Amino acid sequence: MIESMEMDERIQQFEEDTEHIIELLDNRSYFKAKEELLKYNEVDIGEILEEVLEQLGIEKTIIIFRMLPKDVSVEVFSYLPSDDQLAIIDGITDRETSYLINELDFDDMIDVLEELPANIVDKILEKTPKEERKLINTFLNYPETSAGSLMTPDYIALKSGMNCREALAHIKKVGMDTETIYTCYVKGSTRELEGIVSLRALIISDEETPITEIMNDEYVYVNVYDDQEEVAEMFKKYGFLAIPVVDKEHKLVGIITVDDIMDVIEEEATEDIERMAGVMDDSDTEYLDMGVFRHVRNRLPWLLFMTVTLMITGFILTKFELVLSQVIVLVSYLPLLMGTGGNVGTQAASLVIRGMSIGEIDMKDVLRVLWKEFRISIVLGVTLSLFNFAKILIIDGESILIALTVAISMITIVAFGKLLGSMLPMGAKRIGIDPALMATPMIQSISDMVSSTLYMLIAAVVLGITL
Amino acid sequence: MIESMEMDERIQQFEEDTEHIIELLDNRSYFKAKEELLKYNEVDIGEILEEVLEQLGIEKTIIIFRMLPKDVSVEVFSYLPSDDQLAIIDGITDRETSYLINELDFDDMIDVLEELPANIVDKILEKTPKEERKLINTFLNYPETSAGSLMTPDYIALKSGMNCREALAHIKKVGMDTETIYTCYVKGSTRELEGIVSLRALIISDEETPITEIMNDEYVYVNVYDDQEEVAEMFKKYGFLAIPVVDKEHKLVGIITVDDIMDVIEEEATEDIERMAGVMDDSDTEYLDMGVFRHVRNRLPWLLFMTVTLMITGFILTKFELVLSQVIVLVSYLPLLMGTGGNVGTQAASLVIRGMSIGEIDMKDVLRVLWKEFRISIVLGVTLSLFNFAKILIIDGESILIALTVAISMITIVAFGKLLGSMLPMGAKRIGIDPALMATPMIQSISDMVSSTLYMLIAAVVLGITL
Repeated sequence: MIESMEMDERIQQFEEDTEHIIELLDNRSYFKAKEELLKYNEVDIGEILEEVLEQLGIEKTIIIFRMLPKDVSVEVFSYLPSDDQLAIIDGITDRETSYLINELDFDDMIDVLEELPANIVDKILEKTPKEERKLINTFLNYPETSAGSLMTPDYIALKSGMNCREALAHIKKVGMDTETIYTCYVKGSTRELEGIVSLRALIISDEETPITEIMNDEYVYVNVYDDQEEVAEMFKKYGFLAIPVVDKEHKLVGIITVDDIMDVIEEEATEDIERMAGVMDDSDTEYLDMGVFRHVRNRLPWLLFMTVTLMITGFILTKFELVLSQVIVLVSYLPLLMGTGGNVGTQAASLVIRGMSIGEIDMKDVLRVLWKEFRISIVLGVTLSLFNFAKILIIDGESILIALTVAISMITIVAFGKLLGSMLPMGAKRIGIDPALMATPMIQSISDMVSSTLYMLIAAVVLGITL
Repeated sequence: MIESMEMDERIQQFEEDTEHIIELLDNRSYFKAKEELLKYNEVDIGEILEEVLEQLGIEKTIIIFRMLPKDVSVEVFSYLPSDDQLAIIDGITDRETSYLINELDFDDMIDVLEELPANIVDKILEKTPKEERKLINTFLNYPETSAGSLMTPDYIALKSGMNCREALAHIKKVGMDTETIYTCYVKGSTRELEGIVSLRALIISDEETPITEIMNDEYVYVNVYDDQEEVAEMFKKYGFLAIPVVDKEHKLVGIITVDDIMDVIEEEATEDIERMAGVMDDSDTEYLDMGVFRHVRNRLPWLLFMTVTLMITGFILTKFELVLSQVIVLVSYLPLLMGTGGNVGTQAASLVIRGMSIGEIDMKDVLRVLWKEFRISIVLGVTLSLFNFAKILIIDGESILIALTVAISMITIVAFGKLLGSMLPMGAKRIGIDPALMATPMIQSISDMVSSTLYMLIAAVVLGITL
């Protein structure tokens, strides 16, 4: 009987095996290492090779990579991160590179070629037949985040005159990969897409049924220049396994499969999170693989922007030196008010940005969002005010006027923070800026400036200090 | 010729059509509305009904819902958000409810039943055959975020003695939905899972080939109690369309399909984003559907926590009143230093949390992360220090000692912020707390306290003020 292993045990087992293989390679027991490696599937072998490359360097990685059966090595290669792919290409001969690249699935090949320096790409394409070279160049020219760059031209095309038996015989003949076989595309005499038919429908229908009878001609499609985020939305909304990509003349140019969309959903979420935290990263390079100066370049712009706005906040405070020096205890509540303003703003902004990003909130909801945040801010503002009012009076033993100053400031600042946090992202979207850019650093800067000004003004009024 | 429409045009068209249908319903032109509605597929009809419910209320929604063909209405129902599903169930007869629930796909049925009040569930289950009722109860008992709660028991089971022809005949007989048909599961004489075979392999192999020859017995599986996040990781890693779920005895109890996993990936990212921004939301309710007090409850805990820590920061500042009142200009650089500390921390935390969440960074990388953030903090700290030093001297016209105080504080605070931001989430994971909780509010609080203390201490030393 096969025993089920818990996920944790399996992960631990995998890590131990990886360590073992690395040890074997380190001791030059290459054949033993290869044997151990081949117990795993290609995805896992790819992960192990990543570790090998990191710990033992490129030479040993190439030795073991070359020892893998040809078909395995091609698939493993397709799963490696692009840095590691480049390292391997650097270490093998041109001939091996050409073989490798040509054996890859079309969409994987395009991904690799996009990362390679132009001179290497030219060298590879030299040996490619003219027709395919043209196709490759077309694909290389699609914008990086478009439907065109995600699609593969490997799909099953059926002729509209076929019946189910002929269609199945055709599918059997051409073969194809798992992820692309389950939806077939029916073309008319021009290359126009007339409809789609699932393999499921072909199998459960009678053999003689014409495919035009069972095909779906109200199918959903995307255009080759549609943004990948919109394509991902379509997949999520309809639960497709694949979606056809058409050009302006409605000719089918490729299909996008669901496995490539999962990466897009994750990339888009990562991009949102980074932008919301004030990191400007326009590459797919992972955290650990990115150099220090690249990290600095991604993080510095917002920090400098913050520095400038915080300087302005500081400047505003110097204008109120009179208030502050008369009642120095006001300083000790400044962090509280500024911090709270930034936080309530960040909370609202994150929810609204995420809501827009997953398509739950759109521009026509602006009044509903405003009204909701306004009510939330009243409840939160009153709660926090009362709490602080009591604490300042009782625990700090300050005068009622000081407590009142902080309490009034608190309500005002919370209301302002919530409105800012919810409206700024929507305003950004309105004028075509990514709402995710309007998160933490932006909210914090504006909120700090406004919070300190409001606090000082309210203090001057309540405490009767002439400015 | 079919013209391709741009995504924008199609979205606009859809919105106009929705408005039109709502107008028709408002004017009681039900049959015309139904006709318009049926031009769309079930997913889109669901979206339109959501709008109808929101704008015209439940009565009209139920009228049009009842007018839909039975099979369409069941599918449309399965795509509605659970609030809307409950509203419809409230408005239709018990008999209609029973029909509706029983016609749903098994996993959709479980989703609906989970949201319904217990007495309604009992009423529905009364009429269900005993065997199915038992199965439903088992499914209802799986934890909400486990593999068990995501799976469906509707899969194609083949006997290990079959050949391809027999297998295909069996598939043709049982039918099944699109997403569940493409991977078939081979069981032995006990109900143990022996292997999986793709529909693709069945079709392209010779009819007489025994399925045991083409099945994959090194397949990947999950356990029924595995967390949905780990399941999603498996799908992303291997690019599966479906994955088998087994119990402790390695018996196949259901399968999870990729369309349900896309929602999980998105939910997990949303949860991360909310937690990182200090919002504690343990429900799937969307922003606009959630009540004001629920929003308050989700946001208040972190704000109160922040209030307490910010009070401590304020208290620390009062201990340095002597420093502040002697050199009041120091106050004006306080927002700058506190803000920068919080921001550099938030940046680092977001990257590390996201890296852990997508499986790129794990616990063994702690030293690599530390070393990377340390170098980044030096470069960033020095850059920001020089910038501020020059600005304070030249633009503000302050003394060199003041400029030096701020510059030294800046380097120290940036270094501390980066270390805190990167290590706090990893520490949290180590002791079993969700790292996403260690983002904005937590970093900001700790950073504020430490920043103001460091700043005051450095000021006292540089300016020679005896505390």
